[in-house]
Formats: sequence, C-alpha cells, structure tokens
Amino acid sequence: MTIRVTIWNEGRIEKLQPKATAIYPGGIDGAVAEGLEGEGFELRRVGLDDADQGLPAEVLDATDVLLWWGHVAHDEVGDGLVDRMHQRVLAGMGLVVLHSGHHSKLFKRLMGTNCNLSWRERPDGDLERVWVVTPSHPIAEGLPPYFEVPQSEMYGEPFDIPEPDELLFLSWFSGGEVFRSGCTFRRGRGRIFYFGPGHETFPIYYNEHVRRVIANGIRWARQRHSGGRILENWHRPEPLGT
Amino acid sequence: MTIRVTIWNEGRIEKLQPKATAIYPGGIDGAVAEGLEGEGFELRRVGLDDADQGLPAEVLDATDVLLWWGHVAHDEVGDGLVDRMHQRVLAGMGLVVLHSGHHSKLFKRLMGTNCNLSWRERPDGDLERVWVVTPSHPIAEGLPPYFEVPQSEMYGEPFDIPEPDELLFLSWFSGGEVFRSGCTFRRGRGRIFYFGPGHETFPIYYNEHVRRVIANGIRWARQRHSGGRILENWHRPEPLGT
Amino acid sequence: MTIRVTIWNEGRIEKLQPKATAIYPGGIDGAVAEGLEGEGFELRRVGLDDADQGLPAEVLDATDVLLWWGHVAHDEVGDGLVDRMHQRVLAGMGLVVLHSGHHSKLFKRLMGTNCNLSWRERPDGDLERVWVVTPSHPIAEGLPPYFEVPQSEMYGEPFDIPEPDELLFLSWFSGGEVFRSGCTFRRGRGRIFYFGPGHETFPIYYNEHVRRVIANGIRWARQRHSGGRILENWHRPEPLGT
Amino acid sequence: MTIRVTIWNEGRIEKLQPKATAIYPGGIDGAVAEGLEGEGFELRRVGLDDADQGLPAEVLDATDVLLWWGHVAHDEVGDGLVDRMHQRVLAGMGLVVLHSGHHSKLFKRLMGTNCNLSWRERPDGDLERVWVVTPSHPIAEGLPPYFEVPQSEMYGEPFDIPEPDELLFLSWFSGGEVFRSGCTFRRGRGRIFYFGPGHETFPIYYNEHVRRVIANGIRWARQRHSGGRILENWHRPEPLGT
Repeated sequence: MTIRVTIWNEGRIEKLQPKATAIYPGGIDGAVAEGLEGEGFELRRVGLDDADQGLPAEVLDATDVLLWWGHVAHDEVGDGLVDRMHQRVLAGMGLVVLHSGHHSKLFKRLMGTNCNLSWRERPDGDLERVWVVTPSHPIAEGLPPYFEVPQSEMYGEPFDIPEPDELLFLSWFSGGEVFRSGCTFRRGRGRIFYFGPGHETFPIYYNEHVRRVIANGIRWARQRHSGGRILENWHRPEPLGT
Repeated sequence: MTIRVTIWNEGRIEKLQPKATAIYPGGIDGAVAEGLEGEGFELRRVGLDDADQGLPAEVLDATDVLLWWGHVAHDEVGDGLVDRMHQRVLAGMGLVVLHSGHHSKLFKRLMGTNCNLSWRERPDGDLERVWVVTPSHPIAEGLPPYFEVPQSEMYGEPFDIPEPDELLFLSWFSGGEVFRSGCTFRRGRGRIFYFGPGHETFPIYYNEHVRRVIANGIRWARQRHSGGRILENWHRPEPLGT
Repeated sequence: MTIRVTIWNEGRIEKLQPKATAIYPGGIDGAVAEGLEGEGFELRRVGLDDADQGLPAEVLDATDVLLWWGHVAHDEVGDGLVDRMHQRVLAGMGLVVLHSGHHSKLFKRLMGTNCNLSWRERPDGDLERVWVVTPSHPIAEGLPPYFEVPQSEMYGEPFDIPEPDELLFLSWFSGGEVFRSGCTFRRGRGRIFYFGPGHETFPIYYNEHVRRVIANGIRWARQRHSGGRILENWHRPEPLGT
Repeated sequence: MTIRVTIWNEGRIEKLQPKATAIYPGGIDGAVAEGLEGEGFELRRVGLDDADQGLPAEVLDATDVLLWWGHVAHDEVGDGLVDRMHQRVLAGMGLVVLHSGHHSKLFKRLMGTNCNLSWRERPDGDLERVWVVTPSHPIAEGLPPYFEVPQSEMYGEPFDIPEPDELLFLSWFSGGEVFRSGCTFRRGRGRIFYFGPGHETFPIYYNEHVRRVIANGIRWARQRHSGGRILENWHRPEPLGT
C-alpha cells in the first residue's frame, strides 16, 4: 500500500535568509521531496503559512508519516494542532523529525524533556561524519560504514532526550563534539525517528546518503496497525475466568 | 545527607468517600508518612488545597524527592505548577508516582503519552500479586520473591507508557490481568519511579512491603548531582583543538 | 524474496512420551510447519538425529530464519554447531526460540545468562493468558488484546535474561504467576525472538494465535542486510581527514 | 561496608614491551590501585601468572567488584575460571572491564556477541575526548562536561555489543572516529561497567578523570543483595491461591 507522506516545512527561513533561498530555491521541503522521488510514496507538501497551518484534520488524518522541518517559528505552531498531531502519533502515525525540529513543540511533547543540546554554527560549518552504529537496522539499509556532511551545523551532547529505543547513528564533528544523530522512539502506537543532519544554509538535503536515510526512515516509521488494542482507557468491569 | 521528601496528596478523596476516611483517618499522606518513619528522611506533607497548591517555590526547591498521590482532581493542578515541577525533575529532583498518579499532568508530561491502562474496581477488590522481576535492583532490596495485596484496584495492560528504563515489578490480578507495576524512567537529570499498588478504599499503604518499596524508591530517586553538565542549551561558538 | 525458514526440532520427546506422540503424530515440527502453510515461506524441517545434527553448513548458510525447538537433549547439541549457529546469528540470520529453547546452548550463549525461570507442569496444565503489551509491533499484527492457551506449562518470573530490547507479551497463569513471554533481542546483525507458549503434551501449536505469532516472528526476524558494515575487527591504520 | 575490590591484571604486556614497563613500572594494576587509594576500598591485586590464575575460589568469593585488565593473553585464561567468574557475576558480583578487556572471554561470554570494534594504534596515539552524555549517573559524579586523554589508542564503532542498559560516555577521536566508551549492563544479579580509555603505552591510568570514573564505577557496580530471589531454576509444583 502506498505510504502517504506529508512534508511539513515551517517555510520562514527561506524567506528570511538569502543564503537559504539561494541553496533551496524550491524550499527545503522541495529539496526533501525531490530526494524522495522514485521511492513510491504519495507526497504532499504543506507549511506553517497554509490554511490551518497546513494540517487540517483531513490532511492529518490522511497522513501515514509526517516529516517535520522547523527552525525559527516553533512557538507559532498552535497548541491545538500540537494536540492533534500528538494524538495522531500515539494512534500510530509515523513521525520523522529533521534537525532543528528537536525544539519543536511536538517533539518536546513526545519526549517529555527540553531536548536541549550544544550547538555551533560557523560560516563554513563543521565537517560532520555520521557513523552507523547499528548497520542491520532498516534505516541504515544501503549506507556505507560512515558518510560525511562536509558543512554542517554542530549539534552535540549532552542531548536532553530520554534513552532512545534504538541508537542508529553517532556523529563526529571536526570541532571536537559528538552527537546521537539517529535515534528511534516508540510512543503509544507511533514510531518516531529523529535525524540530526540538515541545515538551511548548507546543501545537506541534496546529499544522497541523507536522502537514503530519510526514505528509509519513512518506510520504518510507517507501520500497519490493522488490529490490536488501541491504547485507550479500558474499563473492564468483569473479571475473566480461570 | 538527609533526604528531603515532600508528600503531595490531592486530599479530596478522603473528604468525598466515607470509606476512604475510615481507612485513612489521617489522610493517605498520613499513612504513607507513617510508613516512612524511622527511615531517616525529612518529611513534609502538602496538598492541593494548601496555598500555592502546596508547592510554592521555596518548598519545591527544598525537595529532593517528591511523592505524588492524586486521583479525582488532576485537572485542578495549575499548569504553572506543572511547568515548575517538570523543570525541577529535569534538573534532578526525584519523583515517585503512586497508583492513580499515572494520569497526573506531571507524569503524562514526563512520559509524552496518554498513560492510559485497563482498570477494574470491585467492592472487595482483586487480589494483586506483585512479582519481583529484577531482584537485584535497590528498589527491590529486602523484598521476598513476590508479595500480595489482598484487595486492590486492577490496573492492567496495555499501559501506554514509553518503554521503561528498568522493569522491576509485574503484577498478577485474580481477575485475569497483568501489569507493569514497578517502572523506572530517567528524564533530564531526574529519576522517576512509578509504583502501581495503592488505593483510597483499601488499606494498601499499611502493607509492610508496599512501605518498603516506597522507602527504597525514595532512596533510589534521590541522587547527588554536584557536578556535571546541566542540560541547557549550550552555545559553543569555538571549536576545540585536535 | 522468499524467506527460507529452517525448523529445527530436537525430536526426542515425541519418541519418549506417548502423550506427545498422540498430540503431535507428525512431530512438533510438523505441527509448526502446518501452521506456516500459506505464509509463503520456503520451509525445511531438520532435527538432532539427522546428519550433522540437521544443520550442515549448506543448510545453515541457506537459512534466513531458524526456528528452535528443544527440551530434553540440549546437551547433545555439539559445541561446534553452536559456534556456527552463533556466528550465523551475529552475521544476520534471524532466530525464533520456542518455549523450552530458553535453556538451549544457543539461546544461553546469545543472552550471556543462565536463562533460568520458575516453572510448573501439571497434568492438565495451567491456563495461560497472553496479554499484548505492545500492540503496534509487527509481531502482534492481527492479534486480539489477549489470547488464551487453555493448557500450558507454567513458565514464570524471575526469568534470568538481559533486559529485552522490546517486551511484546506478558503471560498470566491461573496458578498465580506472570511471565515475559514475548521478547526481542538484537545481537550483532541478527534478530532474536523468544516466545514462551508451547509444550509437547498440550496441543498449543495448533492454536491459531500461536501460529500467527510464529509467522509474524519469522517475518520480523528476517531482515535484509545488503550493505553496511559487518561487525568484524576493523583495523583502521590511517586517520581520516578533518 | 567496605567494598572488597580485586584488580586482575594479565601482567604480560609490561614484561613484553619496554615502553609499558617504563610508563607503568609498578604494573598497570599498580597504577590503577594507586588511583584508588583514599577511596576506602579493600584492594587486592592478582594476575594471570599467580596460582589459580589469581582467582582461587576463596579470592573470587571474597570479591565484591572485580576489575579486569587483559590484552595479549585472553586465550590463556582457563575456561573453568571463566565459568566461575561468569556465575559470580550472575550471582551479584560487580565487574568493571577496562579497555582491551572487551575481548576477554568473560566479557564476550556476558555479552553474547563478538565484541569487535574498529581500532588504530599510532606511536603518539589519537587525542580522545570523552563526552559525558548522562551527567546525572553516579559514574559521572564529579566529572566536567568532557575530559581529554591526549594520547589514546582509537577504539571505534561499530562496537559489537548488545544495546547497553545505559550509555554514559561517548568518545571523539582526533582521527575521525566515535565510540561508546562508557556502557553499563545488568546480567543476572550482577552489574557490569565497560570503560574504554586505557592503554599500556600511554599514561592513561594516571589521569585524574579516568581514576574518578574507575572509582565511581566500582561503587556503582557494588550492590547489596541481601534478599530477593536468586535466579535459579525454581520448581513451583503447587499453584498459588486466588
């Protein structure tokens, strides 16, 4: 069954920073979408400045996996939308959170922590070398032992998240830091994948390995949930027999 | 160093249900406090109907471990207080959540899930048999292989929580259900212990094993944090040498 | 691509116990194989008394997922075969361990513990009620909230295994015990699924839910591993550039 | 109660490599022991060339926490001794495994994997920067956000171990690699701490932070186990009441 993917892009940084516009003339979501061509997904692109902030009920309910990119306007995302997305994840929607989405309301809500980290942005970036620590995971399928992002914003430890269910990638930065840059979490019936590399003024979303990871992440986050117990309050007035 | 423990008791159910009053004439917090006598803790008892809902800044800041009991008035706890408690836990305060505290705002905030479960309350309760699955854990110190709570409210699976960092206890119910009744979680610098047994109309907080678990849980949740990195956003403008 | 499944059956108990022969006239492996018909697997059945104890190199190397049933002759399995199977799992072969396979040399080797547990075998068995605690997991696909095995051997806590990567099922027994009856583990590149229900003198392998779990477990344990780093010692004499 | 610590040092490399002798004239165990002075432990130093390979029953049984250093003679450690140590750990003895002990028979036995990794040894070493990712853990007590080992043997990912129960440290190497250099595991009733930094031809065991980690690790690995269920096979012929 075709996976219905919605790419949510805050869409502000491309308007504010000429460098971002130059690198991503079609928007960051455009570059991400381009990287997913040929994967067989049904793609939709929405953003903060669309009606209902891009995610009216009919769109959210028709989304199997949501990709989230945001950076400078996290606070503008409405709490009602965050509530709806949160419940959709708990009910089984997959979520792929990119880079600065670590500080989005939705991700922080799901983690229960502040999701702080150390960071550095230099004009030419840091070299980020992404090591695959769990090469047998479906999200690592097709990757070499490590790959490099020549120019990257440094995101480093300590990263204030709960212990990930699975640690997939560890990043090394030329400036001396390390980062858990690929982590999975299960919350309710939903699967969440956080992926660190990505930035608005470096051409990271054109990198073939980054694109491979995102496509793999979508496939992993999507899961059937045709049966089984929805995790609702379940009153069971009568005891079972023995 | 003496551990400063604050027992927070919603305190409504004892007023509403004559049966609760009869069983806990000194309040649920009174029975819990009595069970902690002789443990060497510095104890304080507060509640929802106290000034600042019992936790003004000077009390919260002087708390090493917070015990939480609430059942029928979760929604009345102010969001500002929840924010303050949340940040205190992330900064290192221990938290022990008792029974129906699974639906407290604070616990749900820390978990990132709805914390739903299955449940059944019968006039005479279900027999709950608590099995120790991790006998070497400090919270299990001094316990037999299992202990019984003759009358208990059934709390059962599926319990909508993230995978616990450690699973300590599993409960068996005479009515046919099972429950992960002892779970630990680390969030930020704080340690959280959820413990299932406990109810307002059954004398569970007089049970010696239940009291042992709560005392052990407090000691475990309390940790020194005299050094190390606070998990704040940490701007690191300069790269390190190689 | 078709998953190549090898069912390994010790095959002794059916010869020793008339009751086992009566219930499983085609052998336990026969009942398991029957339950997998129509799943699209390529099935092979082997056993301890076959040449090379059923797993010469050409069979093992052509196995994507190995199912293991053994009970009374664990010690007869040759250490050389255990070595070969161990390395095959670490290199990516899936492993599904059934019931009393918890004491097999291979499972104990992979766990690093004694894998002891509590147990009871009564002439008519205990009722085992298997609760699904992680309903969104692929291995739980198609299952109801719980299912029952009317006659079962009791396997209970404490179960001496490392913390599972994922806890899928918890069993309730009419005699008063609980058990982590569905657990997954990753070791090297391999995936391991332990499933508790199953016995030689009760008709458990004819149960539709048990059969569903085993088929799901095989699909989950099978993974592609077309790329990525084999987890060998890796001498890297030259530093990388920065 | 005083913690009884036994430092086991293979003791061969100091005899084989003049450089090791020069740096560790009192043996590696001597430098480690010196670093633990003033911690209040009861220390004993033993080695491979002692009677019973240093660990006769009366020594092993009187050990609360075992420190393990070995590098070039792992294969000479007798399987009988490995069996005895393995069972002692499962029964509750703490184990701290240093550096190249990742390939010791005991550690591999406990992990169930090959424990391979990538590695590089240069005459002047790599700079290793150890980042604290879990600053609230007792083993991180008193550490700065990161510390540096100016000359180190590179140990890098992928490290073939099971998912650690807790990930405490991540190392950055000047040559471009990363490593999970501080990991804890629980097996049976025992606690295991693996710590990467350490080498025979670099003066790492004189480093104050390395010494702090080892002392903290010993305290963490030691645990009381005065009660509770030993994880033996437990025949329970009679069902419990309901």
